[in-house]
Amino acid sequence: MLSFQGENILSVNELDREAIELIFNVAKKMEPYAKKYKRTNVLEGAVLANLFFEPSTRTRVSFGTAFNLLGGTVRETTGMQSSALAKGESLYDTARVISAYADAVAMRHPDAGSVAEFATGSDVPVINGGDGPNEHPTQALLDLLTIERELGRFERGIDGMHIALVGDLKYGRTVHSLSKLLCHYKNVRFSMVAPDGLQMPDYILDAVSNAGHRIELVSKMEGNLAADIVYQTRIQEERFPSQEEANKYRGGFRISQAIYDAHCKPESVLMHPLPRDSRGDANELDNDLNNNDNLAIFRQVQNGVLIRMALFALTLGVADKVEQYEVDVPWFSRKREA
Amino acid sequence: MLSFQGENILSVNELDREAIELIFNVAKKMEPYAKKYKRTNVLEGAVLANLFFEPSTRTRVSFGTAFNLLGGTVRETTGMQSSALAKGESLYDTARVISAYADAVAMRHPDAGSVAEFATGSDVPVINGGDGPNEHPTQALLDLLTIERELGRFERGIDGMHIALVGDLKYGRTVHSLSKLLCHYKNVRFSMVAPDGLQMPDYILDAVSNAGHRIELVSKMEGNLAADIVYQTRIQEERFPSQEEANKYRGGFRISQAIYDAHCKPESVLMHPLPRDSRGDANELDNDLNNNDNLAIFRQVQNGVLIRMALFALTLGVADKVEQYEVDVPWFSRKREA
Amino acid sequence: MLSFQGENILSVNELDREAIELIFNVAKKMEPYAKKYKRTNVLEGAVLANLFFEPSTRTRVSFGTAFNLLGGTVRETTGMQSSALAKGESLYDTARVISAYADAVAMRHPDAGSVAEFATGSDVPVINGGDGPNEHPTQALLDLLTIERELGRFERGIDGMHIALVGDLKYGRTVHSLSKLLCHYKNVRFSMVAPDGLQMPDYILDAVSNAGHRIELVSKMEGNLAADIVYQTRIQEERFPSQEEANKYRGGFRISQAIYDAHCKPESVLMHPLPRDSRGDANELDNDLNNNDNLAIFRQVQNGVLIRMALFALTLGVADKVEQYEVDVPWFSRKREA
Repeated sequence: MLSFQGENILSVNELDREAIELIFNVAKKMEPYAKKYKRTNVLEGAVLANLFFEPSTRTRVSFGTAFNLLGGTVRETTGMQSSALAKGESLYDTARVISAYADAVAMRHPDAGSVAEFATGSDVPVINGGDGPNEHPTQALLDLLTIERELGRFERGIDGMHIALVGDLKYGRTVHSLSKLLCHYKNVRFSMVAPDGLQMPDYILDAVSNAGHRIELVSKMEGNLAADIVYQTRIQEERFPSQEEANKYRGGFRISQAIYDAHCKPESVLMHPLPRDSRGDANELDNDLNNNDNLAIFRQVQNGVLIRMALFALTLGVADKVEQYEVDVPWFSRKREA
Repeated sequence: MLSFQGENILSVNELDREAIELIFNVAKKMEPYAKKYKRTNVLEGAVLANLFFEPSTRTRVSFGTAFNLLGGTVRETTGMQSSALAKGESLYDTARVISAYADAVAMRHPDAGSVAEFATGSDVPVINGGDGPNEHPTQALLDLLTIERELGRFERGIDGMHIALVGDLKYGRTVHSLSKLLCHYKNVRFSMVAPDGLQMPDYILDAVSNAGHRIELVSKMEGNLAADIVYQTRIQEERFPSQEEANKYRGGFRISQAIYDAHCKPESVLMHPLPRDSRGDANELDNDLNNNDNLAIFRQVQNGVLIRMALFALTLGVADKVEQYEVDVPWFSRKREA
Repeated sequence: MLSFQGENILSVNELDREAIELIFNVAKKMEPYAKKYKRTNVLEGAVLANLFFEPSTRTRVSFGTAFNLLGGTVRETTGMQSSALAKGESLYDTARVISAYADAVAMRHPDAGSVAEFATGSDVPVINGGDGPNEHPTQALLDLLTIERELGRFERGIDGMHIALVGDLKYGRTVHSLSKLLCHYKNVRFSMVAPDGLQMPDYILDAVSNAGHRIELVSKMEGNLAADIVYQTRIQEERFPSQEEANKYRGGFRISQAIYDAHCKPESVLMHPLPRDSRGDANELDNDLNNNDNLAIFRQVQNGVLIRMALFALTLGVADKVEQYEVDVPWFSRKREA
């Protein structure tokens, strides 16, 4: 029987459809705890080492809170300068040291392959929070869970859907991983909407194609946004060779309520990995979409907490023990009413 | 009946005397837990997002500890660079994201109005930990609670007292908020002791005057410190246009034990928002005052923990449940004896 | 009867053999909790102020985790810039403020004597996590505990052992403190193996000599590594006057498996305070030693958690209460099998 106990979560490449469905089932089970209907103490006393060698407030806080919501406690590092890594310490040694303390590790690091290298020295499960241009598996999973849940609102499933991936498909790590996960599904129609020079890399197009899906490569949003899911990417400015290069693309793939009305379907769901750039010249998803029920960006964030709770519960072998350690919630929370 | 459940605490302007008294009653109820006679677990499992976009060790640690003393857990951010804000994320979006995780937010940010703007996107209570030159309501409340408790030692109350506000009254956010809160009381005599150019702003003087209080505007400490409460401000160097400007005022309003003996009353209570500058040329409250029982600066800090505990308990609706979740304290603590 | 309740742990100079043995006994009692066989909640609700004014990920996380493993919670500060210290606040005042919140303090600061100065203002136990070139008592204790446990594997004790201290003995704070602790034992043979200019300071040599131990001062590893314990130091680059100075010594005292085979005894135990520098030109302990059972560097780290747990338990008076607050551990852990 499939089990993640004691395992690392490093890459979407290791996940098949059965694994994805197990993770999603556990994630949905976590919802009452994330919405504060109930509390669980199952990981009380467990320590998460939340190692963020690259800045990221949202992902770091999401992992930390997910662990807290299972009752666990968190020890964190942010940045590189204050780390022993500055003294030439290998990732293997850092892992041996941190493992002595922790029960699990969540890690983000700017170098591709760094988290896998760290994992070779760790005797506790390591969850990849992003290793540079390479992978960000929990983001891919929360994106896919969101797609499943959003389509579920319209009583549809992922098989047979139409998805438009929009914007920076070349450097967008999230759309690469999401596309790979969608290879486990059937008959998906992909509209790859990207400006020249930022189209999806061939190795992803090949994988998608080999999985039997249909692909359209286009360079304009107009006429290509009438999809079930419209996934807008963030222009990955930090991954461009220079700011001037990045600026050429700024604000070019902007979706506002007007554009939504003109080009999307009434049920098109809008997604984005966040953060969305609110500066005037850079808008990706305008604020006038905030009252559009199909703007799913904040539900993505909530699903992210569920995915991370699920991964911690699964790798630490407590997914089936959470109810046993339930406690009530005495404080006020609007989430229970939302 | 007055309730803070689910409310934000953004500004002293929203607080009347009834609100202040409710907060103070709850704050005093928190004392056994802050002094480790007992423990309460009422917020066990609750998550505080402690967002400090501007450096502040003491306030950040105070808010975090207050939440811990109710049993809750804390997720923190410090600074701006590592935040999604650097990628153009709006405060509204940050709030929508953080709310997905947290049960409450404490926030400090350098821009006036930023915390209120953040609160528009939050579905959990937001407590303002300081928004630039604008407000720092918890400081104002802890200052007022200290005044009430210190005068109580001499069996006096706030109504009818004489307070000397000393130093940088122009930029001193704390003395502005404190003055506004004192408008809810009666017959207070204010000595505004400030060098030329740093006197209290007119809009505060007007509010104080309209509340029926008496004001003296003076520029020397001598002859003006025989008050019940002497509140010394920190020269707000970071708010001056330049360091040269700030340096002109350094050390100019210094109180030592000798000055206390010469100019204060035997029962004059000395207060200061801290940190006090101990560098030789800048002394505001000399170290030779450390053994003076009427130096209340560290009791202010303790009252700060009580105020923050009270605000968390009230906004999360558990002020009347703390005893229900009491547990004993097995470890050694000098605070129980102090 | 010897008790640490309410005491500070500032320097190894204050510890005699009885104190050391008490600390070690408690440390070994902590092992089931560190290895997740069981959990203890004895410090649930207690707050550690983990004040790291100087960067150090490993020590900060070790102290924090040790406190978590007793059930306690941690509030942290890292660095100087965001501290009130930047506004001229004295260490005494910082201590008075932090003590209002915390139950214990662990502190690291770049200036010698700073932690003792801080402690004068603290009403809670302060544990020195390193004060610049001066002391790092918990490192000395974990090193000594490691020596005792490693020799115990060969059914030997510290009295009568042969130890080789290797590398930067001039600036190496850890070897100074370790040598001082060894003065409480008998008949130890010290090989001080250091390049010219980096030999052990005279005041340490005098103390060791006065304690009746035998000393050999040598400048080459060859012929001097056949000891029971071989303690390799990190070249303290940050304490040299310049990087060029430091570079002269880089990689000069490198131990690989080949060197071990050629010059150590079959049972020689290799120790190092970590981090070890893995960069090619700087190797101190080569990675080919990683599978050598006598490479004790990661067991040192584990012993560090035990020592810090013991010091918290002793200073907070709960060493004999940990079992009373035991709870089971529902999650998966490889440590239980290791």
